[in-house]
Amino acid sequence: MEHLFLIGIGTGNPEHVTGEARRTLREADLILIPRKGPDKADLADLRQQICAEVLDDPAAVIREFDLPVRDASGDYRKGVDDWHDAIAMAWAEAIARHEKPVHRVALLIWGDPSLYDSSLRIAARLTPQPMIRVIPGITAMQALTAAHAIPVNDIGAPFIVTTGRQIRDHGWPANTDTAIVMLDGQCSFQSLPAKDFDIWWGAYLGMKEELLIRGPLDIVANEIVARRAQARAEHGWIMDIYLLRRRR
Amino acid sequence: MEHLFLIGIGTGNPEHVTGEARRTLREADLILIPRKGPDKADLADLRQQICAEVLDDPAAVIREFDLPVRDASGDYRKGVDDWHDAIAMAWAEAIARHEKPVHRVALLIWGDPSLYDSSLRIAARLTPQPMIRVIPGITAMQALTAAHAIPVNDIGAPFIVTTGRQIRDHGWPANTDTAIVMLDGQCSFQSLPAKDFDIWWGAYLGMKEELLIRGPLDIVANEIVARRAQARAEHGWIMDIYLLRRRR
Repeated sequence: MEHLFLIGIGTGNPEHVTGEARRTLREADLILIPRKGPDKADLADLRQQICAEVLDDPAAVIREFDLPVRDASGDYRKGVDDWHDAIAMAWAEAIARHEKPVHRVALLIWGDPSLYDSSLRIAARLTPQPMIRVIPGITAMQALTAAHAIPVNDIGAPFIVTTGRQIRDHGWPANTDTAIVMLDGQCSFQSLPAKDFDIWWGAYLGMKEELLIRGPLDIVANEIVARRAQARAEHGWIMDIYLLRRRR
Repeated sequence: MEHLFLIGIGTGNPEHVTGEARRTLREADLILIPRKGPDKADLADLRQQICAEVLDDPAAVIREFDLPVRDASGDYRKGVDDWHDAIAMAWAEAIARHEKPVHRVALLIWGDPSLYDSSLRIAARLTPQPMIRVIPGITAMQALTAAHAIPVNDIGAPFIVTTGRQIRDHGWPANTDTAIVMLDGQCSFQSLPAKDFDIWWGAYLGMKEELLIRGPLDIVANEIVARRAQARAEHGWIMDIYLLRRRR
């Protein structure tokens, strides 16, 4: 492999895919798609669907591989590091199994490869090191603010992008009135003083299952918690994100 | 006008345009393109170029209008508010001048309509209020991190998105080691202790004029200042953005 392309594909809406992403997929010798177990089969299927729409050449090879599972029992950072090692090995094996010489390998990355995604760190583990090219994609942040038709920032003001864990462990971040919260499996907004905030929440953004709830946090928090649990049980998985803004 | 579409088009690379943006442009009755004076004619030309590539129907109407100029002499917030009023009026006039009934109006927004962009605030001033739909686009943030092939965040860590003015007025933001700085006409990184930071800088991202500089801030700051001034003089305009990360 000489080139590895990490291609941002947006949040599950095939229409999020950019012209550059389409072209890069078409030019790839091999496209790797992770299988994350039966619960998340929808996600692999969506990647397959995007490939089917983009690729007119039936000779283009798509290979699925089983994504290793992270060991969440011990130290968090060590668990993540080991997991990234295992994924790099899974990529290398999937490429090695390919019958023909492979020059250009593509991976479809949910959202954008820069944002709370490990592909760049995993790619850095490959030996020999291929040329790595990142194709930017629509992030869940943009999909959220587009769905609600709101700006992320106040005029000239900063905002923070953070995780559920940060909110739980450290409370509201200093020096900003706006936070985008990602990777939050625990509705961590519940740890904040609800009367101080408005929330714009979204799940399955851009997909037909899209859910949107917005309002004063003290009014809609319970509704989000309940709706999220119900949707997760129904689909077997959920991806969601929200924006919190301190009320004036 | 029943519908106003604010369409994110990325940072000047026509390949940044998504499938949804292409479809929405094709379905519009009228596309408005701002003229920002001769210095920024490149930017209007790029929007025209994107429209030309996307629209196969020559009947689709593209109308240019002169973007009002912001009065920067007095209070900043009042200047911005008056400017937004004037732009809303310019949109309404451009639509009213159209010969045929207009149902679907589209505006091409640099980057994404949610991020340091005023279109949503301007659109809110229109009377009667049309239905506003936002089509997400690749932001300068993603274009920057893609060009440098770096993640924006450290594992599980937050980051702030802020402006040059905030950095100058308030220094380094609390509680984060990573900042994306936008809207900085003054290379405000010069106000920070250079030995503490690494920088990834980019201008004209995704365009043929793209410039990238990365390195320890104390080593590359002067190079960025000089290269930026030179490029700006050469092209008559510049759009740039950078990521700062506190050195370990």
